[in-house]
Amino acid sequence: MSNFIQKERAQTSINIDKINAFLDPNHEKTEKLFREIVNDPILSTPKNFYDLTKAQQRELSARKIERLSAYIDNEDFDEFEERMVLLSIADPAVATRLAINIHLFGNAIKGNGTDDQIKYWLYERGTLKLRDIYGCFAMTELGHGSNVAQMQTRATYNPDRQTFTINTPDLKATKWWIGGAAHSSNHAVVYARLISKGEDYGVKPFVVQLRDKNFNLLPGVSIGDIGSKMGREAIDNGWIQFHNVEIPREYLLQKFTKIDADGTVHLTPLEQLSYSALLQGRVTMVLDSFRQGARFITISLRYAIGRQQFGTPQEENQIINYSLHQYRLVPYLALVYLLGPASQRVIADYNRILGELYAGKDIKKTIFDLKNLFVSSASLKSSNTWLTSQLIDESRQACGGHGYHAYSGLGRGFVDWSVQQTWEGDNNVLAINAGRSIIKYYQAGQKGAKLGVDFLYLTQKFDKNLKSDDLKSLIDIWSVLIIKVAQHALLIYNGDWESVSQERLLLSKAHSHRYLLETFYNRLQSGDVSGEEKTVLKSIYQLYSYYFIDKFAGSFLQFDVLDSSRLTHIQAEIKRILGDLRPHLVGLTDAFKYPDEIINSSLGGYNGDFYNNYFTDVTNNNGKGDKAPYLSILTDTLTRASKDELLSNSRSKSTLSKLGE
Amino acid sequence: MSNFIQKERAQTSINIDKINAFLDPNHEKTEKLFREIVNDPILSTPKNFYDLTKAQQRELSARKIERLSAYIDNEDFDEFEERMVLLSIADPAVATRLAINIHLFGNAIKGNGTDDQIKYWLYERGTLKLRDIYGCFAMTELGHGSNVAQMQTRATYNPDRQTFTINTPDLKATKWWIGGAAHSSNHAVVYARLISKGEDYGVKPFVVQLRDKNFNLLPGVSIGDIGSKMGREAIDNGWIQFHNVEIPREYLLQKFTKIDADGTVHLTPLEQLSYSALLQGRVTMVLDSFRQGARFITISLRYAIGRQQFGTPQEENQIINYSLHQYRLVPYLALVYLLGPASQRVIADYNRILGELYAGKDIKKTIFDLKNLFVSSASLKSSNTWLTSQLIDESRQACGGHGYHAYSGLGRGFVDWSVQQTWEGDNNVLAINAGRSIIKYYQAGQKGAKLGVDFLYLTQKFDKNLKSDDLKSLIDIWSVLIIKVAQHALLIYNGDWESVSQERLLLSKAHSHRYLLETFYNRLQSGDVSGEEKTVLKSIYQLYSYYFIDKFAGSFLQFDVLDSSRLTHIQAEIKRILGDLRPHLVGLTDAFKYPDEIINSSLGGYNGDFYNNYFTDVTNNNGKGDKAPYLSILTDTLTRASKDELLSNSRSKSTLSKLGE
Repeated sequence: MSNFIQKERAQTSINIDKINAFLDPNHEKTEKLFREIVNDPILSTPKNFYDLTKAQQRELSARKIERLSAYIDNEDFDEFEERMVLLSIADPAVATRLAINIHLFGNAIKGNGTDDQIKYWLYERGTLKLRDIYGCFAMTELGHGSNVAQMQTRATYNPDRQTFTINTPDLKATKWWIGGAAHSSNHAVVYARLISKGEDYGVKPFVVQLRDKNFNLLPGVSIGDIGSKMGREAIDNGWIQFHNVEIPREYLLQKFTKIDADGTVHLTPLEQLSYSALLQGRVTMVLDSFRQGARFITISLRYAIGRQQFGTPQEENQIINYSLHQYRLVPYLALVYLLGPASQRVIADYNRILGELYAGKDIKKTIFDLKNLFVSSASLKSSNTWLTSQLIDESRQACGGHGYHAYSGLGRGFVDWSVQQTWEGDNNVLAINAGRSIIKYYQAGQKGAKLGVDFLYLTQKFDKNLKSDDLKSLIDIWSVLIIKVAQHALLIYNGDWESVSQERLLLSKAHSHRYLLETFYNRLQSGDVSGEEKTVLKSIYQLYSYYFIDKFAGSFLQFDVLDSSRLTHIQAEIKRILGDLRPHLVGLTDAFKYPDEIINSSLGGYNGDFYNNYFTDVTNNNGKGDKAPYLSILTDTLTRASKDELLSNSRSKSTLSKLGE
Repeated sequence: MSNFIQKERAQTSINIDKINAFLDPNHEKTEKLFREIVNDPILSTPKNFYDLTKAQQRELSARKIERLSAYIDNEDFDEFEERMVLLSIADPAVATRLAINIHLFGNAIKGNGTDDQIKYWLYERGTLKLRDIYGCFAMTELGHGSNVAQMQTRATYNPDRQTFTINTPDLKATKWWIGGAAHSSNHAVVYARLISKGEDYGVKPFVVQLRDKNFNLLPGVSIGDIGSKMGREAIDNGWIQFHNVEIPREYLLQKFTKIDADGTVHLTPLEQLSYSALLQGRVTMVLDSFRQGARFITISLRYAIGRQQFGTPQEENQIINYSLHQYRLVPYLALVYLLGPASQRVIADYNRILGELYAGKDIKKTIFDLKNLFVSSASLKSSNTWLTSQLIDESRQACGGHGYHAYSGLGRGFVDWSVQQTWEGDNNVLAINAGRSIIKYYQAGQKGAKLGVDFLYLTQKFDKNLKSDDLKSLIDIWSVLIIKVAQHALLIYNGDWESVSQERLLLSKAHSHRYLLETFYNRLQSGDVSGEEKTVLKSIYQLYSYYFIDKFAGSFLQFDVLDSSRLTHIQAEIKRILGDLRPHLVGLTDAFKYPDEIINSSLGGYNGDFYNNYFTDVTNNNGKGDKAPYLSILTDTLTRASKDELLSNSRSKSTLSKLGE
């Protein structure tokens, strides 16, 4: 059978090294780390990865973490973090399980602890080197997630003993979903209400030891495994209840809140900064959207190029040649391409702003920047985790029946991904918060306030005729939509933000689209790429803008940013660009340079020989000709005695005649 | 803590019995069967259902089938089928595993066999009573799914021995995805190319025995388990290869194709009818959309009513009171309500038309009706399995973090559901086929041809001013959109149907919306319901139409069916109706009358006490305080020796000085 992928690869005219360098400025490091991961006997993904039970997944992830501890002894923290990100493409659960300790636990201490506390808990004890302490992050309760201020766990100060007593007052206050709590953690940062002298000072973070050196639970600590989940089964999420667990006064993380020996509490107005470090999860999810999106779109596009169906019996058509199939997949490829630079931008912003925060120089400017980052990252996290979920689902459907097979990787991909829409800020909550801020920024901008760089566009003036052939107008058209929706929202706003929640959601999504377009446009203009590669990347940029204009056509038309004829023109342009991009699709997926072990799909291998790969994987993992372990149930059913016999003929005519008169 | 569900239930003013009777005319039978299922010790869902491994799921489903064999000995086939449908709400995989035998295998024989063949294979041997034969349906191959005509398995006739030799010519021709093949089936209907006297007569169905009485594979039959899937792990899908497997001439199913002893083949022009019986799967999926949709929207709405978040600390707001939350869920409740009557209509059509087909009276009319049913069912199956998938995903997200827990039922619900978009007609393929037919019907109607009842609207004239307060106009507005899109498609059609595939997709979706609205409208007019219940059902009907108009606003505006101000009005109407429906949401979900064992969700129980239910389920299934079975990996990591010690100090200064100069 013909191997279309190799054939098209041989004919590719674009230089994938150049494209790869455009997408990933860090590409040399990335290639080095990929090589180390896929050649490591424990870190590489085993062939039976998709067949493992929950218990097996958990053991394997513990083994991978043990293996990573050997790497962390030999490298700096930045490289280790990069290794985790790349490892997480093929195995997101293990990266989460580790991030619970070094990011969530670690950042809670970095963001809330004094310098001495950071030094002790993270460095002296060895936490960040995976020694001694394995921490977890005990914030969420059974009854409260998004509404952090309403957590009900209590930390009551005892001035006589200079201790806090941690208590779970009722079932709803049970700490829930706590990653690592079920098995791996011996310490936690617990978010609890600080009560001193009868006064409730709100929710503060405390370090609480959960288990002793032998991993026996400390007295008063009650923990259980929360059990099975939709995905990421390798993570040992647990619940925790505290019954009079006493911790020293010094275990309160005291950067923003201090308590004297007598129980006098000192709060600082900068407490709003205490959650800043948690932004890392949110911005990382934008990067995850890029990294995971690239993996899954590669699978579905390679399959679409290699798979034939219909057409003539002599030469069936490759399914990617069907225009609907192109329309279903290629815009998501464009999404992934735009997410590359956008994720790098938001992470660079995060690193710069948090660096300034820890340096503590211009605190007013830092707070201003942080607030902007909160808004942009909320919009980007929510919009792009949603879109990536759609990308995976569409990729799965585009692989037809085989997409439903575990070895396509797409089913597991979907269920593992789904939590991204919910954790570290529920997408809808984040999006409507971002949308409200955008409306407020717009209002402030109108009154002459200076806006952050991500929101400057809210005060710009735009040409009335946004020309379709002008690359910059493909950003501006979104700016105009956002401004008009913000104006409309203010018009129908009835004093309750609830009255404009749908408009807020729309604004958040549109802001993300605009952000991705602007970032990509600037990168295109920067001279990082030229020639045919630049032409192709321009087409990707155009496709992205046009495709999402079409998706949001209702709003564009309703708010008169476009008219119908322009929309019809845009729809035709989409078809044209899809045709232009068609010959480059192999190159554009190869350009991600993901090793097969990272793609981990029987359908998406580099060699394009997916029928053989798939059959080999299926037979290697499942054997041939085995009988069911429960065979007797099947045979007993099919060979069971007749109904009369089974009932001992007790309803037969002859019996009934004996029982009658 | 307050139990809002019970409180709101006590205040419900609508009569749920009346609503239930409206939704399900067969409700007395349904209630009887539900009672039998949930009280049966084997058929009811075990508490640890979501924790079972693939191996355990398969054994449990075999046990359930064994148990069902006791029922089938005592009831007629219609009641048994109804039992399967209701059982499948909580456990879709077991119903599929059974349907493979009695529907797919059974219908292939009913649709293609002579009367004698039907009598022998299905009745005399006992197949439909789950005796002796367990059949599977071997159509799909590794290389071909939707394109049935290109299946490559061969059945070559040997006139000397009056037999066929079945062969799998290459890897791509391996039968794949065959449900029941891995373990449970001893016979198959195999679709293979009939070759006689060197001529290829195309793909025909043959009965082939796969396993002997002891379930050993017959010579030449090679079978394996295809392994793990995204969902429905209880089904033992397998692959089959045939190597010179000889079957008697009589095993060809000969209703439409006959072969003489000498190998002369007789085809009939009515062969197009041979796939009619397979429509059962497709129309059943519309019913599944109703039945499963009701289950999942009940979970998310009960949770939304019971869960509080934000608002004031004294009394946090129920999350259903947030307008965005209503907008996310209540339209899907409306979808489920409209799917009730629509699914009953399409199933009634199917039963009537297939009845007429088997009776064989007016074959020309039957073919006309069948063709219309193919189109409507393709549109309904694709649109509503997509929408139900969105319903489940939105429900999962609307339950926040707890929605991601296995015991919410929503994760399993999603993965089990996902195959519905793909099997028995890939949704995109079905939808664009339906869309093409709609364009052709429109064209034919313009030329005066008589259209089927589902498509009469294509020739109607509509008032230019579709008034929003007129219930009937909420159907007509969709008719107008469909006609305008069909006109537009004909305008841009370039001779290749590919050029209008997106328009065809849109037409298919719009046809389904119109069909649901029309059916519900007629039911509302029929006098089946009155009073406050009718008022509420009218609101549901309006919400459905308005919500999807807003979702398709781009098309409605582009094709000038609406203008912006009317759209703005409709958006305001949606908010108003959501408010009107708010007090009735408990009643509207209770009205499905699903027992808790069918809902099978820690979050969606009738008593509304979901925190306690959830905690109890978690601790019962997962214990408390257990250490990890792999504890030593964790402790070995945290207590490992220092890097220097691990490397035997071989890189220490003192060692290096020994090794140096």
